[in-house]
Amino acid sequence: MPTSFYSAQQAAVSPRIGIEAVSPSVDGGLFPVNRVVGDTLTVGADIICDGHDLLAVALLWREAGMPQWQEVRMTLLGNDRWEASVKLTTLGVIEYTVEAWVDHFATYQDELQKKLAAGIDISLELREGAHWLEKAASRPEGSKLHAVLAELNSAPPEDRPKILLSDDTKAMMDAAAHRAFAVRADPPFTVEVDRLAARYANWYEVFPRSLSDDENRHGTWKDVIRHLPRIQKMGFTVLYFPPVHPIGQKNRKGKNNSLQAGPNDPGSPYAIGSEAGGHEALHPELGTLEEFEQLRQAAQDHGLELALDFAVQCSPDHPWLKQHPEWFAHRPDGTIKFAENPPKKYEDIVNIDFYGAGAVPAAWEALRDVVRIWAERGVKLFRVDNPHTKPMPFWQWMIASIRRDFPDTVFLAEAFTRPKVMYRLAKIGFGQSYTYFTWREGKEEFQDYLNELSRAPAKEFFRPHFFVNTPDINPTYLQNAKRGMYLVRAALAATLSGLWGVYNGFELCEGTPFKKGVEEYLDSEKYQLRAWDWDRAGNIVPEITQLNAIRRDNPALQSHVNIEFLPSDSEQVLYFEKRCDTGRNILLVAISLDPSEPQTVSLSLPRKRWNVGETQAVKGTNLLTGVAKTFEDLAETIILTPDQPYAIWRIQPGAMAEQAVS
Amino acid sequence: MPTSFYSAQQAAVSPRIGIEAVSPSVDGGLFPVNRVVGDTLTVGADIICDGHDLLAVALLWREAGMPQWQEVRMTLLGNDRWEASVKLTTLGVIEYTVEAWVDHFATYQDELQKKLAAGIDISLELREGAHWLEKAASRPEGSKLHAVLAELNSAPPEDRPKILLSDDTKAMMDAAAHRAFAVRADPPFTVEVDRLAARYANWYEVFPRSLSDDENRHGTWKDVIRHLPRIQKMGFTVLYFPPVHPIGQKNRKGKNNSLQAGPNDPGSPYAIGSEAGGHEALHPELGTLEEFEQLRQAAQDHGLELALDFAVQCSPDHPWLKQHPEWFAHRPDGTIKFAENPPKKYEDIVNIDFYGAGAVPAAWEALRDVVRIWAERGVKLFRVDNPHTKPMPFWQWMIASIRRDFPDTVFLAEAFTRPKVMYRLAKIGFGQSYTYFTWREGKEEFQDYLNELSRAPAKEFFRPHFFVNTPDINPTYLQNAKRGMYLVRAALAATLSGLWGVYNGFELCEGTPFKKGVEEYLDSEKYQLRAWDWDRAGNIVPEITQLNAIRRDNPALQSHVNIEFLPSDSEQVLYFEKRCDTGRNILLVAISLDPSEPQTVSLSLPRKRWNVGETQAVKGTNLLTGVAKTFEDLAETIILTPDQPYAIWRIQPGAMAEQAVS
Repeated sequence: MPTSFYSAQQAAVSPRIGIEAVSPSVDGGLFPVNRVVGDTLTVGADIICDGHDLLAVALLWREAGMPQWQEVRMTLLGNDRWEASVKLTTLGVIEYTVEAWVDHFATYQDELQKKLAAGIDISLELREGAHWLEKAASRPEGSKLHAVLAELNSAPPEDRPKILLSDDTKAMMDAAAHRAFAVRADPPFTVEVDRLAARYANWYEVFPRSLSDDENRHGTWKDVIRHLPRIQKMGFTVLYFPPVHPIGQKNRKGKNNSLQAGPNDPGSPYAIGSEAGGHEALHPELGTLEEFEQLRQAAQDHGLELALDFAVQCSPDHPWLKQHPEWFAHRPDGTIKFAENPPKKYEDIVNIDFYGAGAVPAAWEALRDVVRIWAERGVKLFRVDNPHTKPMPFWQWMIASIRRDFPDTVFLAEAFTRPKVMYRLAKIGFGQSYTYFTWREGKEEFQDYLNELSRAPAKEFFRPHFFVNTPDINPTYLQNAKRGMYLVRAALAATLSGLWGVYNGFELCEGTPFKKGVEEYLDSEKYQLRAWDWDRAGNIVPEITQLNAIRRDNPALQSHVNIEFLPSDSEQVLYFEKRCDTGRNILLVAISLDPSEPQTVSLSLPRKRWNVGETQAVKGTNLLTGVAKTFEDLAETIILTPDQPYAIWRIQPGAMAEQAVS
Repeated sequence: MPTSFYSAQQAAVSPRIGIEAVSPSVDGGLFPVNRVVGDTLTVGADIICDGHDLLAVALLWREAGMPQWQEVRMTLLGNDRWEASVKLTTLGVIEYTVEAWVDHFATYQDELQKKLAAGIDISLELREGAHWLEKAASRPEGSKLHAVLAELNSAPPEDRPKILLSDDTKAMMDAAAHRAFAVRADPPFTVEVDRLAARYANWYEVFPRSLSDDENRHGTWKDVIRHLPRIQKMGFTVLYFPPVHPIGQKNRKGKNNSLQAGPNDPGSPYAIGSEAGGHEALHPELGTLEEFEQLRQAAQDHGLELALDFAVQCSPDHPWLKQHPEWFAHRPDGTIKFAENPPKKYEDIVNIDFYGAGAVPAAWEALRDVVRIWAERGVKLFRVDNPHTKPMPFWQWMIASIRRDFPDTVFLAEAFTRPKVMYRLAKIGFGQSYTYFTWREGKEEFQDYLNELSRAPAKEFFRPHFFVNTPDINPTYLQNAKRGMYLVRAALAATLSGLWGVYNGFELCEGTPFKKGVEEYLDSEKYQLRAWDWDRAGNIVPEITQLNAIRRDNPALQSHVNIEFLPSDSEQVLYFEKRCDTGRNILLVAISLDPSEPQTVSLSLPRKRWNVGETQAVKGTNLLTGVAKTFEDLAETIILTPDQPYAIWRIQPGAMAEQAVS
């Protein structure tokens, strides 16, 4: 029974088989999904067809640019939903798509089986089976089927069903038979595969010039090297510097952002560029490129990766202003246009006129080349300053361009802007983003925000980086706050997100504001050298060290996904479960949001989620004390104190079924 | 400050402005949205851009095939979401899309205003303003701006801001200025605009051959005409017939689906085709085409539109088997392939081999032409039998082909199949669908199902038709049931959905099953002539009449959307609000799901939804009694009795704000 196609033209606009709701996908495949090496990519799709024929569905994938697809069969979950998984093993862009077709031979086998079972005469069916085999044997892929056909034709009729129904025959038919009504989701979907550090890292931010431990001496790369053991000991994995380039003199800012700089004021590192060079150069007082490379190596030896700041704006002394005046906008009187937010003007900063005729493509390429230079110098993490005020197309092009050659680069967006703009930056290439974490304080706020971040669509393309503070953000609740609040914020960031960051001083409970009502620090390192007492009394270094160790040992904390908020009887206590996607790592975390007084709270145990009965004992470990614990009841009452405002247990529910933690 | 584009090539793959989350849309625009004439189509989109420039966004629409777009500006709702509406006034396919651009002149005006207010010197800004005007004036659309420029240049500097900031100038600039960084969602989205009957209708199904009121005489078109006043009086708007074509003799089924037909058995009308003709012909005993046309006219005069059944299968006597054997599949022995569902065979039915080489395109065109013939004969409603067993591409092509010439045709899918297949049929062209209504009985079941149907994505493309029974479905709960259960099912269907249907006998509380455990009726009209006592004692004709009148007078009941389930203290009472999208029509409906005994229930009044205070009196009308009612409390306690198991009020919350019912 040869079945031809309806016209190919018709099939293209109106396929017999519909492929719908492919997951994961971002905006229908317009943007890539994010994953890291080692992740399993599980792809699902609705496959919809008329009639009763059996279908076959395959997941296809390949490295972008490769001509050949690899393929694995998808399985039917029910309700027309199919699924398959593939392990991601290489950095870079992987394409994937779904192909579905009518499996005529499977349909034939199914009908033959039923008729055999019903004792119906199958002589015509045997001839039909031979037809299917002949058809496939005549194809280039079907040579093996000639032997089967010969066997079939020489066998007595009563032995033929066995040949036609065998798994071997089916496997040969799968390889050879025409895929009837085959349809493929097109264009394919993409996944950007990063290294683990894109999803899990502990950042520590310092101004290298403040690491001399003498506020009268400009710090150097050698000073930074001296601090590496301290930073490593705390468990940080990334050491991040604000801009380290030459700083302009013209309109230089003084201490506490004053308009007049004193003769010894170092200026804001964000006013990039001077006679000593621009974005490709190092500030002379920090040291040479050789010394920077020594630092980079030493940091690596201490388990620390360097992250640099990519801030596009120029000081009025940046060499580009003279070399490439056409990259900047000019007023009708011929003067250069300074940054402004009417009626305010920022005469210490000049922005490149990104979309201007003089800047495209030369300025774009020059900026891309700056990043490339630092990548060639071994820097693979870039924190990007204010990306939302520069062209989205620039980022999309630049990041793709860099990642083609350096697929291990990761770009962190300092996207403190509106939520959809923040998300769009992630879609177009930023592997991490600053978030609203610093402005979330209440229990419901955290639950809502984490639920949004940890579920589709956001979880497929957006990796939140939870900084507890930054040189620009000294949050109100930390200003002149007690130690307990620093512990709370550290615990929140370190347990809620796979990425968390600390700007130095936080671990010392430094929170003196410039003045009431603003988030600036007093005597901000942005405008002056500082020296810190790293052992200051009341610091929370031991707690941060412990939190980072717990993060290292528990994959459940190395991502923001797989979080489930659980019921407790206190509005002041955030309580949740985190579990690892692939392992059997299950944590319970409770954090007081008000460490001003002890919080007594009853935490319900999610026994149903763990597939354990109401009376069954559940074993666990208090990860702060190392003490083993057996949970006997439906709930656990604890007290979170100002000195220890959080609790973390690792759960080992012995009787848990494997599928309960998948 | 002339701003050029970054390269056009770049802009195409990576636009400055992102258009995301356009609504309404079905599968990202792959399928059309459904609406009816008179509806307002409200389109929303996220518009995302870098930087701080002001944006402008327009909704564009046109009849499919027209070269010119019409345009209306969208307004910013906040959170980067924009919206605009357009009234749909014509049948057929409307295309729509969203265009966004950077509004340089609006940005300029905004900055000028701020600088003026701050008392900053604006002499350079005045020159920049003139530049913008000059640029636009040089364009073909900018001729009017020359006068403005002349005025500007001759005005003293202190008068120039007024000219540059005037609404007139802005309007001229809107019309003339280049739309910088303009981006448009492409391909456009589509909306299928139907007539109201696609969304709101009351169907009544009869076998015309059973309308002689004498089970020994085959009914005729004249008999149907005699019944029109009765059917009209009940408030039905559509009169639907199972197939009315010649019936085959070979393997004809007898009474109660017996394999041997008696000499006087009329056969199943679904065994279509005999010597007297096929799908284009009328069963000779019903009457002539002229008489059918008389009926159609008479029905129209009674406010009733005819709906016919489009059932593709053929009896073995269908003329096509001889005329076009190549349209049918053959076995290896040359015999024709009958319908089968192994191991079962259906030798009274032959299916066209739709995808077979011999059937494409001839059989597809022939079937399309059958529908066209009936459309030309004035039939515009087609109930399609079992569409999921025939090609999706056929329906997509056929329905589009028919609707191009007859945009007032509507196709109802008898899609009793899996949910995603049911939805796909709606996406590819069916304007209405049978549903799972008949198998929903519990309160939570109804709430879940209606919530799914009345929200996106389903509500954008799927119109549910709630039949209380069909010739194939005599639901278990109606079998030998008391009158109260018939009232319950009528009230459910008539208030939950804009489309409801009754197969005759239901209004007489006929529910005798063929046997226990099956949904077939005893002595089914599918296989024999019947005569009914239309005034049978215990009928629910008065109640159906009243329900249809309430539906006619209350637009809130003419759609399944805008339903909100409300709290009550009984699991046996379904309680909800329905309101009309555009009018101030608000109903409260309470329906007992267990009419075997009285149900006392306390119904909470949704005062917050209505924007009325807790102590404010709310006026209403009991639509079953016509009695006015004032609700004084937070809840209302009523008793739903077996004789009156539902209640419907129309609410007139006098103090309600207009926006509360939008």
